[in-house]
Amino acid sequence: MVVVDLDIIGDLMKLRRRRPLIHHIMNFVVMTDSANVVLALGASPIMAHALEELEDIASMADSIYINIGTLDMLWVESMVQLARIAGRYSKPLLLDPVGAGASKLRIEVSKKILEVGSVSIVKGNAGEMMALAGFKGLVRGVDSIIEEAFEPLEKLSREYNIVSMATGRVDYVANGEKLAAIEGGSELFKYTTGTGCMLGSVLASLMAINRDYFKTSIEASLIFKRAGEIAEAKSGRNPATFRLELINALHNINLYSLDTSKIKILK
Amino acid sequence: MVVVDLDIIGDLMKLRRRRPLIHHIMNFVVMTDSANVVLALGASPIMAHALEELEDIASMADSIYINIGTLDMLWVESMVQLARIAGRYSKPLLLDPVGAGASKLRIEVSKKILEVGSVSIVKGNAGEMMALAGFKGLVRGVDSIIEEAFEPLEKLSREYNIVSMATGRVDYVANGEKLAAIEGGSELFKYTTGTGCMLGSVLASLMAINRDYFKTSIEASLIFKRAGEIAEAKSGRNPATFRLELINALHNINLYSLDTSKIKILK
Amino acid sequence: MVVVDLDIIGDLMKLRRRRPLIHHIMNFVVMTDSANVVLALGASPIMAHALEELEDIASMADSIYINIGTLDMLWVESMVQLARIAGRYSKPLLLDPVGAGASKLRIEVSKKILEVGSVSIVKGNAGEMMALAGFKGLVRGVDSIIEEAFEPLEKLSREYNIVSMATGRVDYVANGEKLAAIEGGSELFKYTTGTGCMLGSVLASLMAINRDYFKTSIEASLIFKRAGEIAEAKSGRNPATFRLELINALHNINLYSLDTSKIKILK
Repeated sequence: MVVVDLDIIGDLMKLRRRRPLIHHIMNFVVMTDSANVVLALGASPIMAHALEELEDIASMADSIYINIGTLDMLWVESMVQLARIAGRYSKPLLLDPVGAGASKLRIEVSKKILEVGSVSIVKGNAGEMMALAGFKGLVRGVDSIIEEAFEPLEKLSREYNIVSMATGRVDYVANGEKLAAIEGGSELFKYTTGTGCMLGSVLASLMAINRDYFKTSIEASLIFKRAGEIAEAKSGRNPATFRLELINALHNINLYSLDTSKIKILK
Repeated sequence: MVVVDLDIIGDLMKLRRRRPLIHHIMNFVVMTDSANVVLALGASPIMAHALEELEDIASMADSIYINIGTLDMLWVESMVQLARIAGRYSKPLLLDPVGAGASKLRIEVSKKILEVGSVSIVKGNAGEMMALAGFKGLVRGVDSIIEEAFEPLEKLSREYNIVSMATGRVDYVANGEKLAAIEGGSELFKYTTGTGCMLGSVLASLMAINRDYFKTSIEASLIFKRAGEIAEAKSGRNPATFRLELINALHNINLYSLDTSKIKILK
Repeated sequence: MVVVDLDIIGDLMKLRRRRPLIHHIMNFVVMTDSANVVLALGASPIMAHALEELEDIASMADSIYINIGTLDMLWVESMVQLARIAGRYSKPLLLDPVGAGASKLRIEVSKKILEVGSVSIVKGNAGEMMALAGFKGLVRGVDSIIEEAFEPLEKLSREYNIVSMATGRVDYVANGEKLAAIEGGSELFKYTTGTGCMLGSVLASLMAINRDYFKTSIEASLIFKRAGEIAEAKSGRNPATFRLELINALHNINLYSLDTSKIKILK
């Protein structure tokens, strides 16, 4: 029942041919893994947060990823400034509101970045997206496909005119009109830090190639979940081996089949 | 001759069931490994240092770990503030005075944090603990069980009314009255960065479950040394493989026997 | 046609015996890998950037490595100050102008550090070295031995009276008089983040042992390229496995032959 027209392998081949530059403001915990994910896919990462060089680098970049995972006020200033520059140069911009809901600061900063008006996609786990959309209550049960999960996403998509994505056992993507759910992945994601952030790096890399952000979100989700399945098969109950095999699998993802029947278009 | 009553497997099972939140201010070098260690054990890590969100996060956390490994004055302000919040909310607090002795700054900052009065356990390598306790002289020979090794620990424990732990080929734990030494571990620890900090993350995770800190220090030591032995057996002379297998072993530690005869209660 | 007299194994054995302390101001992306590279070789790393402790630590260190990969104005102040302290204490100092050319800031900061007058070796990839030397034009074709590649290196070496090194498929080393090219290495370097920075950590470690910096640059290049070859043979098309095996190979590099015929002295 796939009604989106995807050319995942085509997009991956373009990525490898063009080797786009992906400008990250990434948290300290996942910087290394994110850089390695981008390289494994065939793109080129740069991490830069100094106010004095943001414009030089962002203007050269093919897409931009702002991840607030280990923010402080100096970095927040750079994040907001980078969002402005992304708008000025019409660059694809991904926002990851890591930990939204864990502190008021993270909600405020995420909204401040969204309000700049240049974000293309906002992606977080289900709890973060609910907190950002102002939905209360614990996030339980969103790991199965339930239409309620779309409410906060649709709200965010309509409010900011962007694509919204909530990750978990099932990933959800909304653009204000359409809704998709993507199944698959691995139980070991939850024993490995930064898997959501690494998915963000996959997504930011694809955004440099294909500006249909509803499609690129679905593609990134499917690729990342498939890489997780391949990695799990190679690592048993070993989370550190899983993390290593996840990056290997992303590098070799073109050698594996991608089962698009895992994508459900719900609306 | 074990006279402490430990329920290590019970504490590990509680940890996995409750999935406690462990708030870290961790150094840049070991942030990723520490987050992965906490996840591998079954707990949940958060790294946060912004003054503006410390209280939101620490008040939700089940234990707190301050590691000064890559400090600067901005981060120091957050460390001291986090120690104050830990006290206000009666949270278990672990301090790791990384590099104490390498600079006056690190001694001063460690003491400033201790003087807040909320630290539950201070843990460093033998040299760091001697420097912190004001003992001069090179740290040689503390890698065998010698009662002199306890002097600086007892001094710190009594001065601040806390548990003190010195790590090395033998780990030592003191609480001002009792003294324990734990043997075991791997030669490869010294070829891998941040093993002391990772032990800290194991300890902070257990502190969320069991507030008898003399016991949790011994438990963390025994678990970490055993994981090192398992990892060494799987990695030969290869330190990067060892680091990976160390995290795998922590995840699966319940599958291996823990030999409590490695614990010597000396007093 | 090797006309430099190298004792690589001798220098590695001295390194392991003396366990020199290597003070890094390293970028966030590669801090962990750099620390592990230094430990794998047998030296001892310390990462420290706080102005208040730079002198305490640098004065104890056996060599110093400044890498500007994730700079901001606070860190830049520490980098320049550390260069001054290195001069005052006559410590070997390596500068890695990561991303020079990607922003004006990075060129300015690199020059500011060079102008302190205490840098012993400046090392970057071919593009960074060309940008730093003020050469325009895309860097293409420098991956084969071409004498033109030496122009920017010779300019930098003469201007600052230092050793210059440009890395790539072929590494080039110049000291203002002599010129060397070193072949070998692995295609997988380009799919792994921070390999240039890790080579920097190998080089900084050797600089603590042998202050003939033209020689230590050649030695570090040969060791690192050989480790890449060994790692590639063990990891197939898997970049994350390659990164792990690279560090393993550096630890065991004395077990493998080092083919000095890969060194071409061109002048």
